[in-house]
Amino acid sequence: MSSQAPIGVFDSGVGGLTVAREIMRQIPNEKIVYFGDTARLPYGSKSQSTIIRFARQIVNFLNTCEVKAIAVACNTASAYALDVIEREVDIPMIGVVKPGARTAVRTTKNGRIGVIATDATVNSGMYTRYIHSLNPDLAVYSKACPLFVPLVEEGMLHDFVTEEIANRYLAELKQQNIDTLILGCTHYPLLRTLIGKCMGMSVQLVNPAYETAISLREMLREKDLLAEPLPENETPAHRFFVSDGAEKFEIFANSILPYDIRKTEVIDIEGY
Amino acid sequence: MSSQAPIGVFDSGVGGLTVAREIMRQIPNEKIVYFGDTARLPYGSKSQSTIIRFARQIVNFLNTCEVKAIAVACNTASAYALDVIEREVDIPMIGVVKPGARTAVRTTKNGRIGVIATDATVNSGMYTRYIHSLNPDLAVYSKACPLFVPLVEEGMLHDFVTEEIANRYLAELKQQNIDTLILGCTHYPLLRTLIGKCMGMSVQLVNPAYETAISLREMLREKDLLAEPLPENETPAHRFFVSDGAEKFEIFANSILPYDIRKTEVIDIEGY
Repeated sequence: MSSQAPIGVFDSGVGGLTVAREIMRQIPNEKIVYFGDTARLPYGSKSQSTIIRFARQIVNFLNTCEVKAIAVACNTASAYALDVIEREVDIPMIGVVKPGARTAVRTTKNGRIGVIATDATVNSGMYTRYIHSLNPDLAVYSKACPLFVPLVEEGMLHDFVTEEIANRYLAELKQQNIDTLILGCTHYPLLRTLIGKCMGMSVQLVNPAYETAISLREMLREKDLLAEPLPENETPAHRFFVSDGAEKFEIFANSILPYDIRKTEVIDIEGY
Repeated sequence: MSSQAPIGVFDSGVGGLTVAREIMRQIPNEKIVYFGDTARLPYGSKSQSTIIRFARQIVNFLNTCEVKAIAVACNTASAYALDVIEREVDIPMIGVVKPGARTAVRTTKNGRIGVIATDATVNSGMYTRYIHSLNPDLAVYSKACPLFVPLVEEGMLHDFVTEEIANRYLAELKQQNIDTLILGCTHYPLLRTLIGKCMGMSVQLVNPAYETAISLREMLREKDLLAEPLPENETPAHRFFVSDGAEKFEIFANSILPYDIRKTEVIDIEGY
């Protein structure tokens, strides 16, 4: 495995770009091959066997790009598919769930952690299990928020309707007196302000994207796979692939990434 | 082609069951083979080429069940894929768009028709084109309502939040003084009461499912493909297939169909 090989990053769609962005910030010499499964999104309402099949196809595709490591930038795929697939491949893999859970465990002072995520991620119980494996005394309260993704995709980031929905979804968690809340879906950090306002100043919000990029850097360092520094003024040649709608993807990507994507390729992921 | 063969009905998920239900009512001797593409739903945000590929796989699958006709019970697939695919196969096909459009043309008195649907159906321009092919003097106003499907799936059928969203989506159409509104997505009839309240008594709502079942009956009659009457007390042996989540599908299906499904089979649609 060459340290100059790219890192594979995948998600069901555009949300994982928030993780790609953190990787670009934390390990700026690394090349990324990003895949967004826009033809089959969302993953959050689907079953484990389907998520595993989809993730396996994506990992097969990323392998054809000769990646040196894979970051699963999707909470649902991290919760449902990562443990199965990392046993099937030789390549080191990392998901967003464990780094997010570790940060929450370090952050909480009163031992009461909330998790908001998709139906599938909540049903997987993965955040709760991993938090308890680190500290069985912590209390974990989970809540699925299925309308958050479509509301974000409608651009309703600062809308009283979104606030009303957030108040309903988060009411139980507020009653549980949590002091730490994991934003367990890559779209949710875009609702950070509104969720923060709803939960109040005493609750710390955890965005797993940041911690995932840090964990990835540590993993590459341990395996001696960190890329060499680039010549001055050179940026890594990232590549972007989707299974549908390249143009729509680029518009979103260019609104959140620190540089403009010039080309997104559409591939037939079902063939992998 | 045997008149005793079943009819294939497909949708991106459960919504098409509203069409299957109408077929069961209007032509009760017919056997149905239903396929819901639950692994890849929703279709409404995806591109034409992807919808065509998905629909082609589904038609290939239905052909293995030796269906005598196919009803495309999904507005997006009817708008984007039907014209292409019916040229590729020998089997008679019908969609929901044309029957819905025909009813609207017959219904309007002031010549002003509204269409609400998914992004993809609206972008296809299919309803407008077909209405204009019947009567170029009619005015057609379309509006995509992307939050309606997730709101229905959250069960928020009679909620003030849904009412607020409906008021925003429908404000333009109200200003256009339409007297007829096509519910151009199979989920929308479930919001019928709320949409009717928002639009007012003077606006007629058109549900394409009913008209599609009637058109299908006519098509089968013309081709001499109507099934023979069943012996008394016998019901047709319908079959149900999905690409993911059989249990979740059955719960929804059993809440809207006139009889209980006992078995839903999961198939790997990507293999067709």
